[in-house]
Amino acid sequence: MLIDMHAHIVPERFPASGVERWPVMDHFEPGRSRVMIAGQNFRTVTDQNWDTARRVQDMAQEGVDVQVLSPMPELLSYWFAAQDGLDMARYLNDVIAEMVQSAPVSFHGLGVVPLQDPDLAARELSEVAARGLLGVEIGSNVNGVSLGDPRFLDFFKEAERLGLCIFAHALHPTMADRIVGPDMAVNAVGFPTDTGLTIASLITGRVIEQCPDLRIAFSHGGGSFPFILPRLENAWGRTWNGEPPPPNGTRTPLREHLPQSPAAYARTLYYDTLLFDRRAIRYLLEAVGGAQLLVGTDYPYAEREQPVGTTLRSMGLSDQELEEITWRNCLRFLGLEEKTFLASHPS
Amino acid sequence: MLIDMHAHIVPERFPASGVERWPVMDHFEPGRSRVMIAGQNFRTVTDQNWDTARRVQDMAQEGVDVQVLSPMPELLSYWFAAQDGLDMARYLNDVIAEMVQSAPVSFHGLGVVPLQDPDLAARELSEVAARGLLGVEIGSNVNGVSLGDPRFLDFFKEAERLGLCIFAHALHPTMADRIVGPDMAVNAVGFPTDTGLTIASLITGRVIEQCPDLRIAFSHGGGSFPFILPRLENAWGRTWNGEPPPPNGTRTPLREHLPQSPAAYARTLYYDTLLFDRRAIRYLLEAVGGAQLLVGTDYPYAEREQPVGTTLRSMGLSDQELEEITWRNCLRFLGLEEKTFLASHPS
Repeated sequence: MLIDMHAHIVPERFPASGVERWPVMDHFEPGRSRVMIAGQNFRTVTDQNWDTARRVQDMAQEGVDVQVLSPMPELLSYWFAAQDGLDMARYLNDVIAEMVQSAPVSFHGLGVVPLQDPDLAARELSEVAARGLLGVEIGSNVNGVSLGDPRFLDFFKEAERLGLCIFAHALHPTMADRIVGPDMAVNAVGFPTDTGLTIASLITGRVIEQCPDLRIAFSHGGGSFPFILPRLENAWGRTWNGEPPPPNGTRTPLREHLPQSPAAYARTLYYDTLLFDRRAIRYLLEAVGGAQLLVGTDYPYAEREQPVGTTLRSMGLSDQELEEITWRNCLRFLGLEEKTFLASHPS
Repeated sequence: MLIDMHAHIVPERFPASGVERWPVMDHFEPGRSRVMIAGQNFRTVTDQNWDTARRVQDMAQEGVDVQVLSPMPELLSYWFAAQDGLDMARYLNDVIAEMVQSAPVSFHGLGVVPLQDPDLAARELSEVAARGLLGVEIGSNVNGVSLGDPRFLDFFKEAERLGLCIFAHALHPTMADRIVGPDMAVNAVGFPTDTGLTIASLITGRVIEQCPDLRIAFSHGGGSFPFILPRLENAWGRTWNGEPPPPNGTRTPLREHLPQSPAAYARTLYYDTLLFDRRAIRYLLEAVGGAQLLVGTDYPYAEREQPVGTTLRSMGLSDQELEEITWRNCLRFLGLEEKTFLASHPS
């Protein structure tokens, strides 16, 4: 059993709109379309993005039992006026809900909310739940603001209250001016950097402290965050090797601010294992614990290992650890009962 | 034998100057001084910063045989006009050269150059060498610009030509607006993030490709870079687990741009092991190889393990690996001959 919690979709078409940067699909040949944004081809995509039958076929071939659908992050639309963002969100949420309904054994879905207006986004969460979606995808920053900023706290509290999960995906790195070389370096370096900054902000900004039951996952293994964590832990408690600080140890400003250590919070978050390297996955596992890892592939954009999970299965993990990472943790993250799930997924 | 390659100094006093943000020492009590910058206390420092006798005493107590002296990074002075930066650099270089001469068995020194003017900085490198300094400390960014920017290439080429080593230290993170919480979060999260970005830029900006004999080291284990590396490697060659890509594999834009893979370049750089966690050090070692690791403590600012190297010695490394990391690699980084060095350091 394997659940891919990081699998994107693009609708086959978008409703017409006069909004600037509103996407338009240019189906220039059978099975392929350009996603045109502001007159430019943002990305050429295949019908894997909207054709559920084709996805189910791919999944069977690649060893994936269930996909958790979320929009291509560029569709998060935080750069629109809030009401336009809401229009896009509702359209995407309908499309994703329909895709799930077309093959409910194969798919679960995450929706979108207009987080450029945190109150509106919080209110919209009930609508997301009403469509049968299990949570929402959000960006690693919202128009340049880290997720740990206090303005988003009530949104996270509402997601926690409703039991909706959150998948935070790298988006529009704000430090692109620090990256040199071909465009793809911005994706390769900027995505994990942006994700790392936002996870740290959720911890040092006390969001995780204030939302203890929030279920939130991060793309690409949490980006740079897991490797920054020991320095943050040391800054909190003057500890080395993650050992608990002496009870009467130095009272650092960070320790006054956070009742638990950064690593303790980090071990309540979820991370996909899309790190391309078993040494990195091993480090992540040691840093945050195997109970927090999920499989994510970035389907259909990234080239995937064949079959999916090959690296995980080559790491010498126990059967129990593997089962946790390939599906059990994901059910917990999604808020699904194992018994109910297994009843509809006879092996 | 243990060489600490990451140990800072502040001079006991600075020459008077009318330059804005020029530091002034306020010796408010015996053995302690405030470093006043623009009328604010930047940091309260102890005489460990300038008193070589006290340093030698600390070193004996903490298990350090040699310190490689470099200025407190805030003294890099890239925010001054170039000529003022040069004045500061020459003053610091004289101070450090004197400290080394006062105890040449205990100290080696790295100087400073005004990198806000890359040509001037390149020309000044001969002066640095003439003072007996082995290289220079530079910041992870120069007024917001990553070190991989083409404007710095000739500077690095000149350092390479002269055989001077470079120690790049985290400085003024440019993404501080993305960090939430107490000020110390900017240091804990921003320093490794800034360092990670700059290392990536040196690789994707082809500086390392064009300076194959440059010896350059990075503070704090290279910051976030080692954990970003597998994603960069995958972006280059569609590889997983660092395996070589097929010779006829996908020609990505990054692979067209870089003849060697990012990991191949990463394995020619040096990194201190100031990561506060043996799991992180283990990952770094696996990612870049034990031959590239150096001991650095951030003396006298960070609280240090007692004795220095305790974590390294608890990792189950072979004697040979330990010797490499605690001193042999550092001699190679500094450009010193083992035989000459050992003659002046009878064990």
